[in-house]
Amino acid sequence: MKNAFYAQSGGVTSVINCSAYGLFNGFKKHFPNSNIFVGKNGIVGLIEDEIYDLNKTQKSLDLLLDSPGGMFGSCRYKLPDPESESSFYEKIFKKFEDRNIGYFFYNGGNDSADTCLKIHQAAKILNFDLCAIAIPKTIDNDLAVTDNCPGFGSVAKYIAISAKEASLDIKSMCKTSTKVFILEVMGRHAGWIAAAGELANQNGNHVHKILLPEVPFDETKFLNGVSNDVDKDGFSVVIASEGLKNSSGELYSNSREKDSFGHAQLGGLAPKLAELVNKNLNIKYHWSVSDYLQRSARHISSKTDVEQAIAVGEIAANMAVEAKSGYMPIIKRLGNEPYKWEIDFGDLNEIANKEKVLPDNFISNCGFRITDEGISYLSPLIQGESYPKYKNGLPSYEQLDLHF
Amino acid sequence: MKNAFYAQSGGVTSVINCSAYGLFNGFKKHFPNSNIFVGKNGIVGLIEDEIYDLNKTQKSLDLLLDSPGGMFGSCRYKLPDPESESSFYEKIFKKFEDRNIGYFFYNGGNDSADTCLKIHQAAKILNFDLCAIAIPKTIDNDLAVTDNCPGFGSVAKYIAISAKEASLDIKSMCKTSTKVFILEVMGRHAGWIAAAGELANQNGNHVHKILLPEVPFDETKFLNGVSNDVDKDGFSVVIASEGLKNSSGELYSNSREKDSFGHAQLGGLAPKLAELVNKNLNIKYHWSVSDYLQRSARHISSKTDVEQAIAVGEIAANMAVEAKSGYMPIIKRLGNEPYKWEIDFGDLNEIANKEKVLPDNFISNCGFRITDEGISYLSPLIQGESYPKYKNGLPSYEQLDLHF
Repeated sequence: MKNAFYAQSGGVTSVINCSAYGLFNGFKKHFPNSNIFVGKNGIVGLIEDEIYDLNKTQKSLDLLLDSPGGMFGSCRYKLPDPESESSFYEKIFKKFEDRNIGYFFYNGGNDSADTCLKIHQAAKILNFDLCAIAIPKTIDNDLAVTDNCPGFGSVAKYIAISAKEASLDIKSMCKTSTKVFILEVMGRHAGWIAAAGELANQNGNHVHKILLPEVPFDETKFLNGVSNDVDKDGFSVVIASEGLKNSSGELYSNSREKDSFGHAQLGGLAPKLAELVNKNLNIKYHWSVSDYLQRSARHISSKTDVEQAIAVGEIAANMAVEAKSGYMPIIKRLGNEPYKWEIDFGDLNEIANKEKVLPDNFISNCGFRITDEGISYLSPLIQGESYPKYKNGLPSYEQLDLHF
Repeated sequence: MKNAFYAQSGGVTSVINCSAYGLFNGFKKHFPNSNIFVGKNGIVGLIEDEIYDLNKTQKSLDLLLDSPGGMFGSCRYKLPDPESESSFYEKIFKKFEDRNIGYFFYNGGNDSADTCLKIHQAAKILNFDLCAIAIPKTIDNDLAVTDNCPGFGSVAKYIAISAKEASLDIKSMCKTSTKVFILEVMGRHAGWIAAAGELANQNGNHVHKILLPEVPFDETKFLNGVSNDVDKDGFSVVIASEGLKNSSGELYSNSREKDSFGHAQLGGLAPKLAELVNKNLNIKYHWSVSDYLQRSARHISSKTDVEQAIAVGEIAANMAVEAKSGYMPIIKRLGNEPYKWEIDFGDLNEIANKEKVLPDNFISNCGFRITDEGISYLSPLIQGESYPKYKNGLPSYEQLDLHF
């Protein structure tokens, strides 16, 4: 029986470790005599020979269910082209051979699906017996083929709750003080996370404007809108995607750094919008940038998201039995009321490096709100609470003991 | 029997409504035939004749226990000097006379204690029969006399949890990506909220640097420290008070606007620190500004904080029976292990407009950490969870029906 290699990749989520839990339990069930190796910091651990042996871990794997972040470390690392740089893959496969590894599981988003697909392709080219399966994970919810992505439901819940809470705060203050609150959320090209702000409105008017990367930003229209909100409700709450673009398609915020995939490092949109409001409307503002807080907030993860994150891991193990190399378990929505889903699988060629943005019918005509269709899509994903265990006033988030 | 007037003032908290609940229940017990009037938007409601009659509210006051923000609206409004502008107070007291109000309860922080003290002093000067009692509330934890302030325990819990979560996130990413994470928290002159970041370290090294307004900021020492953290742990997590000052006592961030008390509007420290790190150490960073999110996060309020917020309200009603005008219920710590506390009372002359900063023995010699004494003080305040009720994936935070 062949052993397995698993690694986590890309930006982590509050439930990525739940997928590891699902996979490990599923794989052990199907391959009771096999071992699981885990790359420290994603594929980099494999390249640098930092590989954990899960057999040596003493603590219970149940700890994975409760802890945010990537228990084994993640990475942003682009693999070379399998056709032109086969020597790179020969080295990788030598490492697999040494450990009798026949199953490669890579847990990540678009870029990670690209990594997994390249490993799959290289194995074909080099005639190496390997089953490479990607496990979906991204708070951005922008993976193609799957209905939604594990990690997104929890960040959606966090943003909806935070927006509702901040809205009740500013509502209290607006008479004599702050009248505009701007919350900057993640989302480079797709506005899924910002869209979740609309869920705060199920019981009252808490969020007034949602700024999406899909809708070119019009300063005048925005300022008029905010001014109307303040006239009507006394305040305006704005949820803004970091990837907001102007009509020329350029980032509205200033970007500076780029990562190894060439993506710009974002941030700084909220203060820019706040200044715009202050300069033109002379209104007192507050702004917040949730950044890592939103994607690591395991304390308020969606129960639905936790369940789906476990499920994609479990099904990935099933797919190993069926030797479905080059595929990824995906979530398929069967119905909205009541919400029903099952796990299907998708071809990595249709997933790697692709991005799914908000469909037009989810965006209101004014461009600042989410339609009922969008709400019907989003709402099931934040259902249920999955509280971690607490110790001394804090979530315990106990870490596994890991050994090379 | 005289009636009561209650209002909320200053920046709101996630548990200020719990104090209203405690007061209303206590007052009704002691004065079953009296009515309670509530100012909309603090003292401004009184001035502008926007006064709720609590008798007309149909929904259960239990809703107050669950909802963040100020249920009745708050304000930032400075009252005139009682000696030189007694005509202002004559008008106020006429409104009280019209409604047979003999008890004035004002729920707020330093500035609100000033408001309550002025009302108390004006009543003496004008020989008006009024019992004016302040009820403490501030996330800043900077009120004098009281051991701690209702509202602080919950924001401390939020910051400690968020810091721990973000730390697990960056720990996953630091190998190939982000190595420094900066979280900007509230705190103009006192570093209590930033200090709570130290609580994240009870089980591992999650927070490396705490930047306090009490410690003049030294760029070189900070950069060397961050560089050492990254060398040692691979990453550095920094919790920074918005009110961080340089060695000349000037705000390190740029301030622009001022509120009606002359306080500068802060914000923008985190991106400035991030730029400093990036420019000098060439390290990839992320930063977050929690702003309103931290002080409205009822979803993760401290149970201890909720209990104390209710208690100060209840005891304020007792103090009305004893006619303790010009006083405020305060929290007195009786012991740390186990944590014991009781409610005592303090003279508003010793509280109004005063600010309690972190004592020297709570700050480590390096200036970047909190000592064991500080931890012993902080830790009891975040104990216990007090989850709100959820509906459809979100805290319900139902609002009272309010009628003039």
